[in-house]
Amino acid sequence: MLHIFLLFSLIFTSTNVLAQDFCVANTASGIVTPSGYPCIMEANVTSDDFAFSGLGVPGNTSNIISAAVTPAFVGQYPAVNGLGLSAARLDLAPGGVIPMHTHPGANELLYVVHGHITCGFISSANKAYLKTLKRGDVMVFPQGLLHFQINAARKRPSLAIVTFSSPNPGLQILDFALFANDLPSSLLEKSTFLDDAQVKKLKGVLGGTG
Amino acid sequence: MLHIFLLFSLIFTSTNVLAQDFCVANTASGIVTPSGYPCIMEANVTSDDFAFSGLGVPGNTSNIISAAVTPAFVGQYPAVNGLGLSAARLDLAPGGVIPMHTHPGANELLYVVHGHITCGFISSANKAYLKTLKRGDVMVFPQGLLHFQINAARKRPSLAIVTFSSPNPGLQILDFALFANDLPSSLLEKSTFLDDAQVKKLKGVLGGTG
Amino acid sequence: MLHIFLLFSLIFTSTNVLAQDFCVANTASGIVTPSGYPCIMEANVTSDDFAFSGLGVPGNTSNIISAAVTPAFVGQYPAVNGLGLSAARLDLAPGGVIPMHTHPGANELLYVVHGHITCGFISSANKAYLKTLKRGDVMVFPQGLLHFQINAARKRPSLAIVTFSSPNPGLQILDFALFANDLPSSLLEKSTFLDDAQVKKLKGVLGGTG
Amino acid sequence: MLHIFLLFSLIFTSTNVLAQDFCVANTASGIVTPSGYPCIMEANVTSDDFAFSGLGVPGNTSNIISAAVTPAFVGQYPAVNGLGLSAARLDLAPGGVIPMHTHPGANELLYVVHGHITCGFISSANKAYLKTLKRGDVMVFPQGLLHFQINAARKRPSLAIVTFSSPNPGLQILDFALFANDLPSSLLEKSTFLDDAQVKKLKGVLGGTG
Amino acid sequence: MLHIFLLFSLIFTSTNVLAQDFCVANTASGIVTPSGYPCIMEANVTSDDFAFSGLGVPGNTSNIISAAVTPAFVGQYPAVNGLGLSAARLDLAPGGVIPMHTHPGANELLYVVHGHITCGFISSANKAYLKTLKRGDVMVFPQGLLHFQINAARKRPSLAIVTFSSPNPGLQILDFALFANDLPSSLLEKSTFLDDAQVKKLKGVLGGTG
Amino acid sequence: MLHIFLLFSLIFTSTNVLAQDFCVANTASGIVTPSGYPCIMEANVTSDDFAFSGLGVPGNTSNIISAAVTPAFVGQYPAVNGLGLSAARLDLAPGGVIPMHTHPGANELLYVVHGHITCGFISSANKAYLKTLKRGDVMVFPQGLLHFQINAARKRPSLAIVTFSSPNPGLQILDFALFANDLPSSLLEKSTFLDDAQVKKLKGVLGGTG
Repeated sequence: MLHIFLLFSLIFTSTNVLAQDFCVANTASGIVTPSGYPCIMEANVTSDDFAFSGLGVPGNTSNIISAAVTPAFVGQYPAVNGLGLSAARLDLAPGGVIPMHTHPGANELLYVVHGHITCGFISSANKAYLKTLKRGDVMVFPQGLLHFQINAARKRPSLAIVTFSSPNPGLQILDFALFANDLPSSLLEKSTFLDDAQVKKLKGVLGGTG
Repeated sequence: MLHIFLLFSLIFTSTNVLAQDFCVANTASGIVTPSGYPCIMEANVTSDDFAFSGLGVPGNTSNIISAAVTPAFVGQYPAVNGLGLSAARLDLAPGGVIPMHTHPGANELLYVVHGHITCGFISSANKAYLKTLKRGDVMVFPQGLLHFQINAARKRPSLAIVTFSSPNPGLQILDFALFANDLPSSLLEKSTFLDDAQVKKLKGVLGGTG
Repeated sequence: MLHIFLLFSLIFTSTNVLAQDFCVANTASGIVTPSGYPCIMEANVTSDDFAFSGLGVPGNTSNIISAAVTPAFVGQYPAVNGLGLSAARLDLAPGGVIPMHTHPGANELLYVVHGHITCGFISSANKAYLKTLKRGDVMVFPQGLLHFQINAARKRPSLAIVTFSSPNPGLQILDFALFANDLPSSLLEKSTFLDDAQVKKLKGVLGGTG
Repeated sequence: MLHIFLLFSLIFTSTNVLAQDFCVANTASGIVTPSGYPCIMEANVTSDDFAFSGLGVPGNTSNIISAAVTPAFVGQYPAVNGLGLSAARLDLAPGGVIPMHTHPGANELLYVVHGHITCGFISSANKAYLKTLKRGDVMVFPQGLLHFQINAARKRPSLAIVTFSSPNPGLQILDFALFANDLPSSLLEKSTFLDDAQVKKLKGVLGGTG
Repeated sequence: MLHIFLLFSLIFTSTNVLAQDFCVANTASGIVTPSGYPCIMEANVTSDDFAFSGLGVPGNTSNIISAAVTPAFVGQYPAVNGLGLSAARLDLAPGGVIPMHTHPGANELLYVVHGHITCGFISSANKAYLKTLKRGDVMVFPQGLLHFQINAARKRPSLAIVTFSSPNPGLQILDFALFANDLPSSLLEKSTFLDDAQVKKLKGVLGGTG
Repeated sequence: MLHIFLLFSLIFTSTNVLAQDFCVANTASGIVTPSGYPCIMEANVTSDDFAFSGLGVPGNTSNIISAAVTPAFVGQYPAVNGLGLSAARLDLAPGGVIPMHTHPGANELLYVVHGHITCGFISSANKAYLKTLKRGDVMVFPQGLLHFQINAARKRPSLAIVTFSSPNPGLQILDFALFANDLPSSLLEKSTFLDDAQVKKLKGVLGGTG
């Protein structure tokens, strides 16, 4: 029966180099393509590459939104390269909010680990879909649509784990996109109908110029 | 040589029914799937299905934004079903603006037919990419990112044709998404950091409630 | 400004019917295609369609594997249709095991909600990747590869939430695939090198014939 | 251990309906979508659906090209629906030729079952890639490029099996595309630079009008 | 509120490197993959990368076809890398023709900027779909199918912009593919049924040998 | 007419570098991405790259399974890179068997070149689909599902050619996956319900440890 071993070892040796069961990202290669990063050589991949502990650590919510997002995208967690999946941890202290945002590159599925979270998204037809979720509930947010999460547990923190349909979903937070860069206020006001005072106030807070 | 004809006719007869060179949408079927609409039977498809004249008609820009968007998405132009393409016409009167918006489902390529147009989009890294385009210029807007177009020709109209990498790119206009539905003002303000007065003003204008 | 509303309402009316921001499955239509189920008409979709509470209910682990799998695939959770995502809940009582299995149609990302879980998968190169995860850890299992999860918390239950890169990942449990059908024992033994006694024992337990 | 069976049966019952391990085409449904045909209900699928005997029957080469193409596309072989694969049999009598053609929807891999076949394709850079293959050789023809196969065995038939990267690769045979329809000769000549006499001769043979 | 900035800056810093909102091609890297070119580092990307002026310049139609094609494929316009879109400009002088050709890698959407253009394509079922378009009209040409465009404005030039469903659609012009390389005339004649005199005449004109 | 040549040569020169009609793998580059290998420069590609003779050589079946698998995956046959296709040759001596295995990354289509082969696969619903094929028959095996092939010609060899819907389908042979590595026997037994004696016997034969 050892012959089987030798026979298939031969096959495996030749296919092994090429096996793309997985493609752990070589994020240090300086190369990224539309399909993702080059793969680390399979011989150098270990069990540790597939596991990731970063989502087990609570984010620091001592900030103005009383919330934190901890990503496990391909940049932090190279094993998801090419797998069509990634994740993030949402910590929401009492009063916490993950502000209105989109993921340009992925659909999202949220799971409530503990607490209560009010989630909403808005469709292309401008309809708001709103739910308050409890522990164990899940909700999906379709790709590219504005959505937010707010802690609905008044006095306790809430925790959610979200997963995405891409290793690199992107994240465009509305306020940062509008007010934290050098887009001239005149263009911003003309394209958003926001008042000049409102724009200048938020640019001031978020460090925007222009 | 007629034998060739008969021989291949036979083959063609059998494959013909199934040929998916194209799949002109049967939008009246009441069925839509994640890959698009069912196809009209090929025997019922004519040259007229592949051409579309709707983008030849100027949109009505006598409105507050002095602009108009005329779509040739799969709903208006069933021939693009399954082809990974669609189009739209942007009419910009003097002072006109296509307000800040995203296409959740497609990348966009804009071509300036005449006039001058200031275009901008904002990346996930919050960087604003801004260009004023002239006749014949093109610009791309990556999927899901906030962008806008403003007529830069002070006294004349400008015209652009945009194409998308999907038959149904979606369109989420920021102001309509935020202010033209029943999303409660308290949630909206908490998730956008906009002032209550600003929110109520725009809800008033755009018909929002809550 | 009401003009904007009317203008874009017009656009929205025409695109609305076709908007495929999402495609909540009509699982009662009797139609499934390679891309998934037909969509419920958007007008009939509510917030409740996007949320799912089934993963909040512990599975019944009073069985021989001391474990339970509760799926939130497109069949149970129609909102994931077309979104490239689904989920499941893994309950592992003390001594519990999710037996060796594959998902033919998706990659998997596991998150440990509480407890300790020993996870392993085997690559095409026959290498075993093994990790014992603690609360908050994640691990990925590439598509189609044999893998398993075992409760590593000796006296307490463990809980994991897994997500998949497909609305319908499939699930082929090795023992059921081999021993719970009418595949003739002679063919099974010849193709697996398992002993006749072993095959008959497990067929007996799992209800296989042939 | 029967408990396992019951437990997982329960899971399987719920996922079974939706399992898309495969999607055998219901070609009689009158519905085709961009992703293919609706699936036959899994309960009605048998082993016979997955096998196909049509490629075991030699095609009739008593015709002017001394060749025959027998397709196993999704129309003939519904099991390939959604699987990204199909096949065909090429019979080449002495002097036989599969004339210049393209497959608009798939790449092709040819395997020589017996005989010798001269194969060629032309790239977008107008370079001709030409090989004479013997029994057991394979060759690939990239999607959409003009290619042909000619029997290189002077006195014996040759046989090839080709497979495609799509259930429905399409087939556009150059002479039929140009000369077997009602495309006006003036347009045809202007767009191909072929002489009027040549066009009329081949239209005559192949039944073209216009 | 500065805390938000710091908090999300942290997130943005880590995801920024990896953000694949876009992937402007590094065409000088010497690397191309099936998904396209490696991306230029985001820090080196500017607004100028997203705009392209090459389609604003009329092509030189002082040639035998009285027409010109100016591509904005990924080679000329690196910003379309990975975006599933590209474009080209078609200049048609009086009497001009874009000869019969295919795009092996993309569907095409044509927009008439000015003039009148007679467009046609031929399906796998050998049916000719023919339309004469006027200013503002659009027409689609499915992937891999033979098609052509002829100026229908007798005394004036016509101009069209075409977009494609791929950054690199390919272009196989029938006459060049057949007559501008070293494919032996005997094979060419046998596979196309064209007369020897016709083949030699066009090989002579187009520089073909063999 | 030479002008045409010059005109389109110009276009071709610019697009040539980028033409991705095909992407013959540079397997020596040390780079692999989720979409496959980098392409060899088109100028260095010859006809020989597209053909492959390795499947014309019978595999050595003088082994315990009396069978051999000869792959033409991207590692052996670089031309299939990016084409969504690959192939392999199955030699089955009398009594030969290709043991129970899966392809994690592709669907499979088998063609019987000569002999009789009993083929079976098992679905996610644990149903066995079993057929004995004769010369010229084809059968499909959906991605990721357990399947096997056994020579049904008692006294003669059988030969099959299989093609896959991926350049790199992967291959997980059940016995090697379970018994030819260092996965601890205790975990293996717990996750497969196989008896300790059975596990140790097969580990002994196949060189497994742990």
